[in-house]
Amino acid sequence: GKKVLIVYAHQEPKSFNGSLLKIAVEELTKQGCSVTVSDLYAMQFEPRATRNDIVGRLHNSEAFNYGVETWEAYKRGALSKDLVEEQKKVQEADLLIFQFPLFWFNMPAILKGWMDRVLVQGFAYDLSKAYDGGLLQGKLSLFSFTTGGSQEMYSNEGIGGDIRYVLWPMQHGIMHFCGVKVLEPHICYAPENVSDEKRKEMLTAWTQRLKTLWKEEPIDCSPEWYFK
Amino acid sequence: GKKVLIVYAHQEPKSFNGSLLKIAVEELTKQGCSVTVSDLYAMQFEPRATRNDIVGRLHNSEAFNYGVETWEAYKRGALSKDLVEEQKKVQEADLLIFQFPLFWFNMPAILKGWMDRVLVQGFAYDLSKAYDGGLLQGKLSLFSFTTGGSQEMYSNEGIGGDIRYVLWPMQHGIMHFCGVKVLEPHICYAPENVSDEKRKEMLTAWTQRLKTLWKEEPIDCSPEWYFK
Repeated sequence: GKKVLIVYAHQEPKSFNGSLLKIAVEELTKQGCSVTVSDLYAMQFEPRATRNDIVGRLHNSEAFNYGVETWEAYKRGALSKDLVEEQKKVQEADLLIFQFPLFWFNMPAILKGWMDRVLVQGFAYDLSKAYDGGLLQGKLSLFSFTTGGSQEMYSNEGIGGDIRYVLWPMQHGIMHFCGVKVLEPHICYAPENVSDEKRKEMLTAWTQRLKTLWKEEPIDCSPEWYFK
Repeated sequence: GKKVLIVYAHQEPKSFNGSLLKIAVEELTKQGCSVTVSDLYAMQFEPRATRNDIVGRLHNSEAFNYGVETWEAYKRGALSKDLVEEQKKVQEADLLIFQFPLFWFNMPAILKGWMDRVLVQGFAYDLSKAYDGGLLQGKLSLFSFTTGGSQEMYSNEGIGGDIRYVLWPMQHGIMHFCGVKVLEPHICYAPENVSDEKRKEMLTAWTQRLKTLWKEEPIDCSPEWYFK
């Protein structure tokens, strides 16, 4: 069976994001996948990139450089335990699903902190090992999120612009940078502002998509997909 | 004199970001501005959006909805003290400067957490009060940041794409959404990979820009600026 890591960033299990998470765990497990969930709020995951991420002495204690220090710590096995655990989950996964509500055209800070702290140099990329040559090659990723605004607002003519504009930093700038292929995002628009029936349809659509997920081809993660 | 709030997200005062902060404080103070700094790492600013942001009872304790709860808490004066303090600084400022290193095509999580938690509904925007009608009208903002990648990488032909693509969620999705006008960003490309002389030139350029900052016109914060 395939291995899936779901990195989940919502405070409330009864939320719509909580339902989407539950569906993914159930459907993928039913398919025979091994599913791991990093429930960031429940874990009280630390989003701040600080000196605490390095165990023991610093490479250069005169002037703290987070990128250099975590790179060096990774090489000598001196990253903090919570990071090592997340990296192990990433290493083992065939597919990474990120489930979250869009906050300010972006992921919530707690999830951004997961990216900032887990995907360190040496582990996820290296000097000349980025994008198609990134160190996490062979894996897939999928951004699944809810919005506050409607689909019309996030269109080319809408005030929020094309929703793909907000996907660029996440999909290209993070996942593609690490060599991870990107599946089509899964977007539920404004679940708080639609009818119960529409919400049920959205949940069913997610279940249906998951049934054939492993047959999907990744997107072409180039500027054309986002901006043309 | 004008009032300036600098929201600063770097761990190390001796860093290049630290030098840019120092320059801004000195130059703007010399001009007679009143400058306040929110030094997020030094403050150990909390980036996680949780129930702790609401003092006392919840509006709906059955299912926690951060957006609804902070909106309700704002209206009845029940937001946590650290948020109230940041909101007061924002309220008083004529100009907001965000100083940070670009992490993963975006701001560091600690700064994203400042956006997520401080700019709550009722304070920064409201139901039909967003974009040009946002509640923080009359203020200016400026994103000043350093990159790891070179200017060539962040060009239209570069693998990172036009740097303006990463500015859309920050400038349009956050500041413009709240009614704040946006000045041209100030970008120092790859300060860790250039000569001492080039670094000095970058610092001088920042000082020079600040001297005539109040004469600048905001950008036209529409899709054309970012994607055409």
